[in-house]
Amino acid sequence: MTDGLFIAFEGGDGAGKSTQVALLREAFERAGRAVTVTRQPGGTPLGQQIRDLVLHGDHVAPRAEALLYAADKAHHVEMLIRPALHRGDVVITDRYVDSSVAYQGAGRGLGAQEIHDLNVWAVDGLLPDLTVVVDIPAEEGRRRRGDLHDRLESEADSFHEAIRQHFLSMAAGNPQRYTVVDGTAAPEAVHADVMGWLEKLGVVGHDGLA
Amino acid sequence: MTDGLFIAFEGGDGAGKSTQVALLREAFERAGRAVTVTRQPGGTPLGQQIRDLVLHGDHVAPRAEALLYAADKAHHVEMLIRPALHRGDVVITDRYVDSSVAYQGAGRGLGAQEIHDLNVWAVDGLLPDLTVVVDIPAEEGRRRRGDLHDRLESEADSFHEAIRQHFLSMAAGNPQRYTVVDGTAAPEAVHADVMGWLEKLGVVGHDGLA
Repeated sequence: MTDGLFIAFEGGDGAGKSTQVALLREAFERAGRAVTVTRQPGGTPLGQQIRDLVLHGDHVAPRAEALLYAADKAHHVEMLIRPALHRGDVVITDRYVDSSVAYQGAGRGLGAQEIHDLNVWAVDGLLPDLTVVVDIPAEEGRRRRGDLHDRLESEADSFHEAIRQHFLSMAAGNPQRYTVVDGTAAPEAVHADVMGWLEKLGVVGHDGLA
Repeated sequence: MTDGLFIAFEGGDGAGKSTQVALLREAFERAGRAVTVTRQPGGTPLGQQIRDLVLHGDHVAPRAEALLYAADKAHHVEMLIRPALHRGDVVITDRYVDSSVAYQGAGRGLGAQEIHDLNVWAVDGLLPDLTVVVDIPAEEGRRRRGDLHDRLESEADSFHEAIRQHFLSMAAGNPQRYTVVDGTAAPEAVHADVMGWLEKLGVVGHDGLA
């Protein structure tokens, strides 16, 4: 159990997660809450080095890639996320365990259950209280990303579609902890959907954040 | 199953593993066998970068450290060890899964079974045909290492003693695949012990290597 509130944004590249993270941060800060915003991979200096190894180096064996991302997560949770939650912060992360399961498990066919177990071990069981899936079709994601600037983003649409389906099925299986918002809508409309969900859950009140 | 022969040397820092690896390599090469010598961590360019991250950077969370070494192993096996075994090489590695289990599991208290399972997943089940444990007391290891040049080597003797006991218990539990040689003896005497064991197993003949 944690004192703070731990929220993850998940979704494909180009879905608009970082915009939604920024809008939610502002909303919590306006309500006087301390907010820690972070991302995976790369939320710590070590994590950034790990991310660079995976994305900009030579070929990385698939199991090694999964383990490197899990290492980033283990370090990130111990050094940054747990301390912030213990201080009582709202922690908002751009990607977390579900992205690893989607990209390494569903996307690369390593076995979603194995990747899930690996990552749950890495984070020593710390999963988000709430997860927002920002959903866009794979084709739309490709259009938004424009030119291809790293290895992951040059994968085919079918890879991205497999990832998308993983997020949607996670959300369908855990409706009390997940919501899916339409990433093709205008950013403010997407944000309003997120706030409406948080209101329904009692995390925020009718007249602002609790 | 592999076509080649996969031999691991395990033991504490300063035990003389690299000397023994070199002597065994020469023996196999004199007998006309192709030999691939490697080490963990750091047997590939990616592995070297991972090793640098762990040994020479800031504090690394214990689970992250275990996962980084597992990532090195996964990449190493896929890129270097399996291809060499498929070519029919004798592959000799300076450290392998047992070192990870000893250092991260027994030494740092993360749970030896968990670290073992993690590493067996990383290497996709590829374990050595034969393992030589080069055994020295922790105190002797410290004397031999002399000045302390990285983080792992500055740990206390009790840490090294826990690691030593792990190697000895692995060997005791798997006598058909492990041997323990006395690392305090002269290098040529240790090498003769290794050759005697391989002869007994039928890997080498009386008059040289098979």
